Order: sequence, then structure tokens, then C-alpha cells
Amino acid sequence: MDLYLLFSYFLTMAKELNEIRIIELFRKHLDSSPHIFMGLKSATGIHEDAGVIRLSDGKLLVVTTDLIGRKTHVPPKMTLFQMGQKAVTVNVSDLAAMGAEPLGLVFSVGFPKDITTKDVEDIAKGMNVAAKQYGTCVFGGDTNQTDDIILAGTAIGITNEEQILLRSGAQEDDIVAVTGWIGGAALGLYCLKKGIELDFHLLQYTLEPKARLKEALILNKLKAVTAAGDITDGLAWEIFKIGEASEKGIIIYEDHLPIQEKVIEIAHAYNLDPLELALYIGEDFELVLTISPDKWELVKKKCAEMNIKITAIGKVISDRKILMEMKSGQIISLRKEGYDQFKTKF
Amino acid sequence: MDLYLLFSYFLTMAKELNEIRIIELFRKHLDSSPHIFMGLKSATGIHEDAGVIRLSDGKLLVVTTDLIGRKTHVPPKMTLFQMGQKAVTVNVSDLAAMGAEPLGLVFSVGFPKDITTKDVEDIAKGMNVAAKQYGTCVFGGDTNQTDDIILAGTAIGITNEEQILLRSGAQEDDIVAVTGWIGGAALGLYCLKKGIELDFHLLQYTLEPKARLKEALILNKLKAVTAAGDITDGLAWEIFKIGEASEKGIIIYEDHLPIQEKVIEIAHAYNLDPLELALYIGEDFELVLTISPDKWELVKKKCAEMNIKITAIGKVISDRKILMEMKSGQIISLRKEGYDQFKTKF
Repeated sequence: MDLYLLFSYFLTMAKELNEIRIIELFRKHLDSSPHIFMGLKSATGIHEDAGVIRLSDGKLLVVTTDLIGRKTHVPPKMTLFQMGQKAVTVNVSDLAAMGAEPLGLVFSVGFPKDITTKDVEDIAKGMNVAAKQYGTCVFGGDTNQTDDIILAGTAIGITNEEQILLRSGAQEDDIVAVTGWIGGAALGLYCLKKGIELDFHLLQYTLEPKARLKEALILNKLKAVTAAGDITDGLAWEIFKIGEASEKGIIIYEDHLPIQEKVIEIAHAYNLDPLELALYIGEDFELVLTISPDKWELVKKKCAEMNIKITAIGKVISDRKILMEMKSGQIISLRKEGYDQFKTKF
Repeated sequence: MDLYLLFSYFLTMAKELNEIRIIELFRKHLDSSPHIFMGLKSATGIHEDAGVIRLSDGKLLVVTTDLIGRKTHVPPKMTLFQMGQKAVTVNVSDLAAMGAEPLGLVFSVGFPKDITTKDVEDIAKGMNVAAKQYGTCVFGGDTNQTDDIILAGTAIGITNEEQILLRSGAQEDDIVAVTGWIGGAALGLYCLKKGIELDFHLLQYTLEPKARLKEALILNKLKAVTAAGDITDGLAWEIFKIGEASEKGIIIYEDHLPIQEKVIEIAHAYNLDPLELALYIGEDFELVLTISPDKWELVKKKCAEMNIKITAIGKVISDRKILMEMKSGQIISLRKEGYDQFKTKF
């Protein structure tokens, strides 16, 4: 145990600050204003990743902000172009989870003194490609000198009270569904950090994640979604948040989880549990949604039509527990644990 | 000359990237969308510090973002409470310069692993105090792990096409005016960096700057202001920007500049030129405004009533030069130079 590890250990013992406690501290000290529909202080807002302003015409402005730093958020082999893309994607994903259409993004960027023209161009090109994919644009920003490359983005979206997706709307017997595949991004992150070669296709989940904006807006139009969130902090974490916000429980089924065979194989080869990757590491930019059971067939049909992969993985229950039924039939409690940058997972 | 200095020297020789060139690179690679009223790409937007979205009801959403890092933006002796205040103020100042009323702010904060509860609380309290001063609030945010303490804020304001203040509206013969005192913040910064003791009152310009939001909104209601900007990057810099955006020239008069006697005295004691501090260093959170000459008496009256210090320092001229008439009667050209974090001033 080197000095740094020892220090980390004592820090942990001293109830080290994690993301949740930091947000609690902000919430404690920050006041709100009357036109804030949802914010750090409001009853519903504490469950959401974005703040919401009510405009004078009744529409809702959804504002989300997220920062990535090269040293702390960018895995080995991720290029600056990909970093630019990801900086847009993390913010658009939060809009998607709330069913808001993006109006645009602004970025405060911090660059060290030795930044080159090519570096800046790579980042800008990545941002632009990603923004266009989501039908939006980066329309403003500011540049500063910092030690590390920092891309702090804010995405602004618009919606209304009928359409906004909150974590708090899940109803008993709703279907719990997830878009896409899960676990792949966490596996990619592990392999990149350990220097393990991985198939290019699998690495894309980690290096070029895509926000499920189109999917969220299409499903939202069906008025089928009762609650939603992205699973970038882990599927378990997001399910806990939806359960808490909705004051319900959720049970998911191990054998329904959309983990690719290839991911399971590689995980086993490195003594990793694919379930742990999918449930607790996160980095997947997929959405978990709760859907009224009477709308599930409609949702499946629409998703098939639009080529959207969606999988029913569980259901909402009245008993306020977050459970998983294993393939063996055994029912276990999920851990309320997610990817927290203030701890180190790998 | 140590290795680092040598390296810096070569970088400079190799046309080191400065803030303007970085913004040009972003502008080159970022596309816009039709509802962006003013952004990186639009004809007017290139002169502004904020992006503007046109909402469906015709109102304009002004969005500005600014990041401060402890190592790079926070002078010695500035507390974390003051850093929190400043992170709000820098963003609100950009809204003020555009005549927009703040709707709220969000923050992406980056904290190193060793951040303490007290540190976080100090920052949050500082943000809250400042936001309340400006009649607004911090309603959302995100926390991340970074090497340095990073506060990346985005302020959202609202206005309309009749009321938005742009740099491009200055007309020949308009009065050029500035709010408050100038030069004090740069002197404070110098003294803090050099470890020179300075009067508490004078240090406040540097440690607890205030955005001139109230002033901007009051003057804006008089429909007297034709162009505006804040002078945080230096008075000369802002005058150049207004001149360029408006396609006009500006002449200012040395003997009109509101530099406090005390600032002049202390500057001279340390062999500093008070004019250089006021014109080229910046850090003053004052506004420079161009005002129709027929409204100047009205503006003066209103400012006297509301206890707002405003000083006429020059006028807009047709000849596209940025000039200063010295006390001696000699007319000099100002240098197009401002505070650029990618260079080091002191």
C-alpha cells in the first residue's frame, strides 16, 4: 500500500465526500426562485438530473450541465474528437431522459497552455458531429486556461408539462424496459484501463456512446412512458432513483437483461461478472423507461418499425424494494450503488 | 531562463494559441441551427459573449457560460466563498451586458478528491449569496472529480428583440460611458499576486466584484443605450469590440476616466501605470455603454436618482479608429490588447 493508497484509505474511513453528499451540501445552501419548476430545492427536482424553468408562455425549459476532464473522464485511447462528441452526448442524454427537445448547447472549455490548433479543432469537430446527430448545435462558449482539458457543457431543451418525463411517474405494474444493450461500455472501460485489446465494435460503446434522444422523443409521443432516466451511472442506480422518486419498488429479471453474448464471454475471460458490469458500473448511454402495461404492445410495434431495440427487463411493484430475480429463481436485493467518480471502481 | 520559460518562449514564437484564435477555431468547425438568433456562426453573434436562442413566442433566451478554476483564476487570499460568488458574477455580468434578466444558473463543478465538506459549503454559500443579490438562483448542477476546483457556470436570461443590448448598435456622436470606478480590480490583482498589503476596501474590487445587472436593466428601460459590454477583459478591449461590431471609431479622454486617486497613488508607488491597469488588464466588472446624446441628460438624472455612478468618458466617431486624447492634448491610438489568460500579464 503506497502513501497515496493509504491516504485514500483514511479519506474513505473519514466518510469521504461522494457525489451524493456534495449534491446534498449544495441543496442545503442554495435557494430557489418562484419560476423554477424543478430545481435543486423543489420537491420533484431532487430526483432529476436537470433543472427546469417555467417560461411565461407555460413551456418548460430543461437545462442540464455536465463536465468532462481529460485526466479524470477520458479513458486511454479516446481521441480528442471522441472527447468532444462525448461532451455533447452526456448532456443530450440528460435531455433525452426528460423528453426534452434540444435547443442548443454552450461550452465553457478549459485548455492547458500547451494545447495545439489540431487539439482544439479535433474537439470542435467532435462536438459538431455529435450535435448534428442530435439535430442541434453548439451556439456559444467561452475559453479559459486550466491545467487539464475541461469541457463543461450545458444543454438547453424545451418541452411542456404534459410531455416532460420525470423519474417520479412510475405506476405499479408498469413494464420496466431498457433501450439497446447494456454492460458493453463498462467492459470497454475496463479493457481500455487495463490495456486489454478489444474488438473495435465493442469499444464503440465506451469511446463513441450515443444518447437515445430520437428514441426518447418517439416513445414520448406515444404517451406510454411514465418515468425515465439514463443509465450512465449504472442500471441499478437508475432503477433505485426511479423507485425512490415514484415511491414504488422494481423487480428486474436476470434472464431478460440485454447483455451481449460476446460481452459475457470476454467478461468471464477476465474474471469479471457481466452482471456487475451492467448493473453497477454504468457508462451505457441507454434509457430505462417505465411503460404502462396497456401501451407495451404499441411501444414494441413502434420500436420495431423505427428499428429501436427495446427490452422489457422487469416491472414496477408496490413493495418498495429493488429486486432481481436470478435465473435460478432466487430473488436478491440490488445494491444501491452506482458509478461514483469520487470512488474508484477499477 | 529555465526550461519552462524557454518552452513558453518558443510557444509564443510559434504563434501560441490565444483565446481569440481558439474561439476562431471553434467558430470554423461549429454549425448553427435556424432558431439560433445569435451564436458563434451568426453575423452579429461573433461580437457577443453570449449565445441567443429565439423561442417560439418570439422572446430571446440569452445563454452565457464561464468557467473559473482555482489554480488559474483565483488570486491568493480569495476564499472559496468568494470564488463561489465570483463564479456567479462572471456569468451574470454577461447577461447584464446584453440587457437580459436572469432566469437562473446551473453549475458543473469539478472537485479534487481531497475536497472537504467545509470547502463545498463555502462555495455553495458564496454562489447563493451572489445569485440572490442579482435576484436569481442556482437551480441545477452536476458534480465531477477533477484535479483542480472548477466552477463552470451557465447563466440563462430572457429579453426580447427591442431590449437586447448588442455591441453593434453604437451610432456616431453617441456618448461613451462607464459605470463605477476602473483600474482598482487590476491593482488589487497585482498586489495579491505580489503579496503587497492593500486596503481592504480596494481589494473588494478584485475579491468580491459585483455585476452591474441592476444598472443595465434600469438604463435599458430608458431606451437610451445603443451598445453595451462589460470590461472584465479591459476597457480598451471592450471599446475595440464595440467599435468593430458597430463599424465605428471611439475616442476616449484620459482626464475623464474614473480612476480613484488612491489607485493612482498606489500604482505609482509600485511603478505601475494606472492607465495600463484600467485600459488593458481588466477584471473590473463595470459596463461600458454607448448612449444617444439626446438621452444623456435623462440617463444622468436617472443614475443620480438610483445612486448609480456613471461617467462619460468619450464619444463614438465615424473614423474607425480607437483613440485616447491625453491630458496633454496629444491623441494616441489605443492598443487592441486585453486580458488574455493564455498570456501572462503580471
